[in-house]
Amino acid sequence: MNKLLILTLSAAAVLTACSKQDNEVASPDGKIKFAFDNSAEGLFYSVAEDGQQIIAPSRMGFVLAGNDSVARFDVIGVERSSHDDTWETVWGENRYIRDNYNQLTVNLRQKSADSLAVNLEVRVFDDGFGYRYVFPEQSRDSLIIMEELTEFKVPAGSKAWGMTASDPYYEDYFHLKPIADLDTVRTPLTVETGSKYLAVHEANLTDYPKMDIIGLDSVTLKARLVPWSTGVAAYIPVPFATPWRTVIIGDRPGELVESSLMLNLNEPCAIADPSFAKPMKYIGVWWEMHLGNGTWYYGPDHGANTAHVKEYIDFAAEHGIPGVLVEGWNIGWEGNWPTNDHFDFTKPYPDFDIKEITDYAASKGVQLVGHHETAAWTKNYENQLDTAYQYYADHGVHNVKTGYVNVLMDGKEDHSSQYGVRHYRKVIETAARYGTNIDNHEPVMPTGLQRTYPNLMTQEGVRGQEHNAWDPDGGNPPEHTVVMPFTRGLAGPMDYTFGTFNFDNPVYPFARVRTTLAKELALYVIIYSPMQMASDTPANYAAKPDAFQFIKDVPVDWEKTLVPDAVIGDYVVTVRQDRNSTDWYLGAATDENARELDVKLDFLEPDVEYTAQIYADAPDADWETNPTAYTVSEKTVSAADTLPLHLAAGGGTAIRFIKK
Amino acid sequence: MNKLLILTLSAAAVLTACSKQDNEVASPDGKIKFAFDNSAEGLFYSVAEDGQQIIAPSRMGFVLAGNDSVARFDVIGVERSSHDDTWETVWGENRYIRDNYNQLTVNLRQKSADSLAVNLEVRVFDDGFGYRYVFPEQSRDSLIIMEELTEFKVPAGSKAWGMTASDPYYEDYFHLKPIADLDTVRTPLTVETGSKYLAVHEANLTDYPKMDIIGLDSVTLKARLVPWSTGVAAYIPVPFATPWRTVIIGDRPGELVESSLMLNLNEPCAIADPSFAKPMKYIGVWWEMHLGNGTWYYGPDHGANTAHVKEYIDFAAEHGIPGVLVEGWNIGWEGNWPTNDHFDFTKPYPDFDIKEITDYAASKGVQLVGHHETAAWTKNYENQLDTAYQYYADHGVHNVKTGYVNVLMDGKEDHSSQYGVRHYRKVIETAARYGTNIDNHEPVMPTGLQRTYPNLMTQEGVRGQEHNAWDPDGGNPPEHTVVMPFTRGLAGPMDYTFGTFNFDNPVYPFARVRTTLAKELALYVIIYSPMQMASDTPANYAAKPDAFQFIKDVPVDWEKTLVPDAVIGDYVVTVRQDRNSTDWYLGAATDENARELDVKLDFLEPDVEYTAQIYADAPDADWETNPTAYTVSEKTVSAADTLPLHLAAGGGTAIRFIKK
Repeated sequence: MNKLLILTLSAAAVLTACSKQDNEVASPDGKIKFAFDNSAEGLFYSVAEDGQQIIAPSRMGFVLAGNDSVARFDVIGVERSSHDDTWETVWGENRYIRDNYNQLTVNLRQKSADSLAVNLEVRVFDDGFGYRYVFPEQSRDSLIIMEELTEFKVPAGSKAWGMTASDPYYEDYFHLKPIADLDTVRTPLTVETGSKYLAVHEANLTDYPKMDIIGLDSVTLKARLVPWSTGVAAYIPVPFATPWRTVIIGDRPGELVESSLMLNLNEPCAIADPSFAKPMKYIGVWWEMHLGNGTWYYGPDHGANTAHVKEYIDFAAEHGIPGVLVEGWNIGWEGNWPTNDHFDFTKPYPDFDIKEITDYAASKGVQLVGHHETAAWTKNYENQLDTAYQYYADHGVHNVKTGYVNVLMDGKEDHSSQYGVRHYRKVIETAARYGTNIDNHEPVMPTGLQRTYPNLMTQEGVRGQEHNAWDPDGGNPPEHTVVMPFTRGLAGPMDYTFGTFNFDNPVYPFARVRTTLAKELALYVIIYSPMQMASDTPANYAAKPDAFQFIKDVPVDWEKTLVPDAVIGDYVVTVRQDRNSTDWYLGAATDENARELDVKLDFLEPDVEYTAQIYADAPDADWETNPTAYTVSEKTVSAADTLPLHLAAGGGTAIRFIKK
Repeated sequence: MNKLLILTLSAAAVLTACSKQDNEVASPDGKIKFAFDNSAEGLFYSVAEDGQQIIAPSRMGFVLAGNDSVARFDVIGVERSSHDDTWETVWGENRYIRDNYNQLTVNLRQKSADSLAVNLEVRVFDDGFGYRYVFPEQSRDSLIIMEELTEFKVPAGSKAWGMTASDPYYEDYFHLKPIADLDTVRTPLTVETGSKYLAVHEANLTDYPKMDIIGLDSVTLKARLVPWSTGVAAYIPVPFATPWRTVIIGDRPGELVESSLMLNLNEPCAIADPSFAKPMKYIGVWWEMHLGNGTWYYGPDHGANTAHVKEYIDFAAEHGIPGVLVEGWNIGWEGNWPTNDHFDFTKPYPDFDIKEITDYAASKGVQLVGHHETAAWTKNYENQLDTAYQYYADHGVHNVKTGYVNVLMDGKEDHSSQYGVRHYRKVIETAARYGTNIDNHEPVMPTGLQRTYPNLMTQEGVRGQEHNAWDPDGGNPPEHTVVMPFTRGLAGPMDYTFGTFNFDNPVYPFARVRTTLAKELALYVIIYSPMQMASDTPANYAAKPDAFQFIKDVPVDWEKTLVPDAVIGDYVVTVRQDRNSTDWYLGAATDENARELDVKLDFLEPDVEYTAQIYADAPDADWETNPTAYTVSEKTVSAADTLPLHLAAGGGTAIRFIKK
C-alpha cells in the first residue's frame, strides 16, 4: 500500500515536464493511440487506430454516495512503462500468450474539497486497450460508488450485438442493433463499425459489480454498474482497483476470438500447484431429465439413482470419457423451488449411494462430476461450503458443477451485483483449497479469472443446449451458435453442452436442437470449454459409433487457436491445434443457410501430409428435415491445399487432421 | 372528491370549539377510548380500555420523497360521527355482521411550506379500533411516500406472535417473542400483553404497499411499508386514503377470531350480482404430485392427463364434491422455473383435452377448478388476462386457483409491494367480470377485500399442507395449526388444504403430516375457507368411508362462529352453525400434548336434543405413532350438557350436531 503512495508522490515530480504527448500512449506496434483530455468539463479519453478514430472523446469518472461527482480533476502526474513477456497457460485455447503493452498511469486529484486521489491506468496492446481506475491509499479508507461515468463513444453508424441485461442468467439471444436501440445490455458487447470489429468488455471483475452498457444515443455506450438492492453500486475499500474496461479492436471477427487481451489483464495464477485443474469431457444424467424422463427431486422416477448412475459410469469407462455428472442427488429439490433455501450438500437421497457410486467409478477410472444446486440461496451454501467440498473430496470428487437458479440471490441481490461477485469468488477460492474444479452455472459473466484460478474451468451464462429441450420458442435458431463465438465466447469458456445425436423430442414436440448432427460435432471445436459435455444419452451415442468417435477424439485443451474465416451470425471456421499431439482440428458451422466454403489449410505444418477425418453433412442433410444425415470420410491433405466444405442448412463440418 | 374538500372546510369551523375531549373518541359501549395528542414533537395517539392503557402515545405520519417529513401538524378541525347497522355477508363465518362505531376525523395541516392537508380518520368499535390517513383534494395531485411513521406502543412485558417478513409467500411459522426480538415481521401480529390479546393488522389494502412491523424496542411496533425495488414505498394520487391500521382488542384469544372489525373497515360489495361467488369443496390432482408421483410439466408421468382427471371427476361426482382442481395443464411448466415467463393460459398440453374434460365434468355435475401458475411473471399474465378468463368461461370454468411461485414479481418487485397489490387487484376485478372466483396462492396478506369482491374466495399466504409433503424440517409441527387461527387466520380465509387420511410418505420419508386423522377433520371447522380442499387422493378416501363422511358433510359457509375456548399455540375449540341448516359443527385440536377438554354445549339451541356425530381420536391414537386410530360414534346431547373430549397428542375432535 505504501508503494502506491510512493508512486503517486514520485509521479508528481513528473508534472512540470507535462507536454501534449504526455496525454497519449500508443500500442507497441504504434498503430493504436489512446489519448486522454482533462478539461473543465471533466476527464475524457479517445482512441484511434492508424489515424482512424475508434473511440471519440468519452467521459470517465464516478458518482459517489451523497451525489459527490468524481469527474473533474487536476492532473498531478503521468507515468509510463512498457511490458513484454510470454506466459504459459495451465489450460486453454492457446498454450503460450504474449503480454505486450505500453502503459500510461495518470495521477489525478478530484477538484473538490474532498480531493480524492485516483490513478487512471491504461494499457494499450496491438489488438486493443484496457483501462482501470485505481484509488491509491489516502485519508479515506472506503468509498460508496453509486455510478460509473465511463463511456465508449463508437463511430457513427455502428451497430452492436446486444443481449438484454434483464435476464439474470445471461441466457438470452444477442441481436445486432443500432447503438441507440440498445437498452441495458450485457458485455461482451461486439460492435460492428462498418470497417472494424470492437469488443467492449471487462477483465478481472473482483469485489465490484458487473458493468452493463446502455446505448444512450446513436454513438454513446455508457457503463451501468449492477447495483445492490439498495441502489448502491459498490462498497469499496481504499486502496482499490476497479476491473479493467476493455476494447478489443479487429479488422475481421476472428481477431476478437484470437485476442488474449482479457487474460493478459488478469492476475497470474494464484494456485501454487494447479495441476489438478485438468480439462476433461463428461457425460451426465441430465438431458433425459430435461426431456421429462426422470426427475431431479426424489420419487419413483428419480434420475439420480445408484443403478442408473452406474450405467452411465459403464458407458463412460467403455468410451474413455473421464467424467459423469449427476444432478438431483441431494436433499433439497422438492417443494417450492424459489424458496428452496434448504439444500443440504452432504445428504444424498436414499437411492443415491455415493460411496458405492464413487468407489465403482474409481474402479473404472471414471470420476463423478458433482453438483451443487443452490437455488441462489448463497448464505445457505456458504454456511456449508467447507463441509460440502470436504465431503466431495472424501469421495474423490474434484469437479463440481454449481447452480444458481433463482432470479435473485438470497431473495434480494442480483447475480451480477457486488454481492454476487463476492459469492462466486468465495466458492472458487474455497474449491481451490480442496483441489476442486468448478463448472459454474448461472454465473456472473466471466472476465478471465481462470488465469488466476484455473480451477474455474467453465461457466454457463449462455443460452445453451437445455433451451432446445423445452423452450416454447422452439429452441435456439441455427444462427445462435455462429453468433456465440463472437459475443459470449469472448468472455471465456462456456458450458453449452452440445453433442445431440437424436433430434426427436416426443415430450416437448414444439422444441428441438436446431442443427445437424455434423454441426453438433463441429461445435466442439468452435465453442471452447476445458470441460466439454457430451450431453446426449449413452443409448443415442451407442447407436452412432462412427460419429461418436469424433467426440471421443476431440481435445479439450489446445496449443493454438485461429479463426480464419467468419461472418458473425452467418458462419464460422475455427481451427485449433491439440496441446497434446500434432493433430489439428477444424470446426465449421453455418446459420440457417446452406453454404459452400473453401478453407485454406495453411495453418497445417508445411510439407507434411495429413489424414483428414471428415465428419460432414450428407448432401441431403438439413437441420429441419434431415439433421442426422452425415458422412464420415478420410482424405489426404497438406498445408498447400484448399478444402471445399459443404455445410447444409443449419449444418457444419468437423475435421481431425492427423500427421501421416 | 369535492365532498372531501367541503368536509375539510366545514370542519375548520369547528376549530374554535376545540377542547380537551375533542381529542378523544370512545367505543359505542364507552369502554375503549382513543385519544390523539398533537404537540410540537408531532402527532401521537393512545388507546385505553376500561382505563387500562392498551397503546401508549405512538407516533403517526409519513416521510415523503425529498425527505419531507409529514409529522408535525396544525389541527384545523375535528369532526365526529356514529354508525350502527347490520349487513349480510355473501358468504363467510357469520351471516350477519353489525358495523357499530364512533368516528373521529381530525383535519390536519402539515407545519411546513408545503402545508399538506391530511385527515386522520379513526373508528372505534367495541372490540377495537382502526385509523387511516386521508389526503383530501388539494393543490398537489400526487405524492411519493418513502416511509410511514405509524407506531403501536404496546404494554411493557408484551410478547407477539411474529412471522418473518423475509418470506415473500408468508409461508413461515409464527413464533411468540418479546417485542424487541421481532425483526421485520408480518401482520396480523398477535400480541399477548399478559391481560389482553391484541391483533395488529390492516384493512382494505388498495393501491398501497403491505404494512410490515418492526420491533424497535421492548414496547414499540413500527410500521414498515414494503417498498418498490427503487426504495419508494408508494406512489399515490391525491385525493387518496391509506388502508386502515387496525387493532382488535380481546380478553380471550377467541374474541380476535370472532371479531368482524376488518370486514367492517372494507367497502361494501362492488359486484352487482355476486351469486356466482358460491362456497365449495374440491379435490385435485395435486397431493400425489407433491409426493413425487406425477409431474406438473408435460412428459411420460404428466399428472394432468385426460384419463387421470376423469378418474378424479368420477370420484367427485360419486361423493358430491363440486370441484376438481388440475394443476400443470397448460404450456409453460418446463425449463428453468424462475425464468418461466412464457406460461400460456389458453394452451393445454397435448394430453389434456379441456373440452372433453369439462364436458365430462358438466355431465356429472362437477366443475373443473382452473389453475393459472404465473411464476410471478405478472406482465405475461396481465397480457393474457382477458383471453385466459374468457377461455375458462367458455369451458364453464368459474373457479381459478392462481399462483405466483417466484420470490419477485417480474424479476423485480415484491409480492407485497404496491406493484404486487395492484396486480392482485387487477386479477380479482378481471375475474369478477367473467363471473369467476379466485383462490389466490402466494398472495399479498389478505385484508378483508372479500367483502368488496366476494369472488376473492380464499388465499394461501400460509405454511400449508404442502410443506408436510416434502419440507426437510419434517413438516408443520402439531402446534402450527393451533397458532394459525389466531394469527394468519385473522386476515381471512386460507386455503390450507388439509384432509390427509394416509400419513405414510414413502417418497420423502423425512416429512409427513403431523396430526391425527381426527384432527385433520377438526381443522375443517377450525380453519375457515369458503373453498375447502380435500387434499388426499381418492384411493385414500375410499379406504376410510366412515371418516370421509365428515368431509362430505362439513359446510363451507356458516351462519355464526364462536371460539369458546383456546390457548394460542396449545389448543382451540371452534364451533360454527351451518348457514343452510340448523346443524352445528365443532372442531377441537391440540398441539403435541394430549388433552382432556370439557366443552359446554351452550351454543346449541336450548331445550332441543341433538344427535352428535363424533369423530374422535381413538384412546391409543398419537400423531407420531398411530395417527389413523379414530372412532366414529353418536350421542344424544343438548345445550345444557358439557361434553368431555379426549384429544390425542397432535390430535383433535370433529363433531356434527343434528337436531333430533
